[in-house]
Amino acid sequence: MIKFRRVERKDLDKVFPLLQQLTKIDYSSRDKSECWNSFISNTSSNSIVGIYDNEIVAYGAVIIESKIRGESAGHIEDIVVDNKVRGKNIGVKLIEELVKIAKEKNCYRVTLCCVEPLVNFYNKNNFKTNGVAMKVFTK
Amino acid sequence: MIKFRRVERKDLDKVFPLLQQLTKIDYSSRDKSECWNSFISNTSSNSIVGIYDNEIVAYGAVIIESKIRGESAGHIEDIVVDNKVRGKNIGVKLIEELVKIAKEKNCYRVTLCCVEPLVNFYNKNNFKTNGVAMKVFTK
Repeated sequence: MIKFRRVERKDLDKVFPLLQQLTKIDYSSRDKSECWNSFISNTSSNSIVGIYDNEIVAYGAVIIESKIRGESAGHIEDIVVDNKVRGKNIGVKLIEELVKIAKEKNCYRVTLCCVEPLVNFYNKNNFKTNGVAMKVFTK
Repeated sequence: MIKFRRVERKDLDKVFPLLQQLTKIDYSSRDKSECWNSFISNTSSNSIVGIYDNEIVAYGAVIIESKIRGESAGHIEDIVVDNKVRGKNIGVKLIEELVKIAKEKNCYRVTLCCVEPLVNFYNKNNFKTNGVAMKVFTK
């Protein structure tokens, strides 16, 4: 039912409102073309959208890190599934798809940070807890 | 006392043994040039070495993620300070330097994953706990 594909420029009108379900951000002053150009200039960011009933209902990103010791690692970020389509296993399939991309990019592991109540959700995709996530704001 | 600069190809002979203090890896079969070329092909990885008494004693990386909504975020990885020079505050300065790079790259925040006993260490650089780190191996 759910299909995934790489995000495209034309998706931004749907993706930005979807991301609001994750973090409230005022997008009114943002220039979509500037956002897109900055996004695609960094080839390590790989993002997909999930399409259900001809509508974009999910978004997620996996960032590919190249380690100096010659390996690659994936970092999952910005996972969101539209509230309207919860309970259809779309989140699990989204993570599965991002892990698949990381494997294709030759990553030996994928990491992510989440809040405690989401641990069981990520367990479904075989993620195990691996310490503490920490953050500092720099702006 | 400690000086930081971007990692260079010639540093690998020092950096690889240093990384062994973080994770035991058999580097004997690895081609350093291949590692280096793969590393520098990904411009989102920014790594530095710390030099003390003319010797490389620290290594750390910050990966720059470009978000689709137009912002950048930093991810700190592979922090190591040589056991020989512990207690000189080099770790704190290393993190400070990586956060500085993230700011220069216009990141609005920097994240990292660590084990519980290191939380106090990262607090010194104003990192706050922000949930759970999770991992899946893909090889």
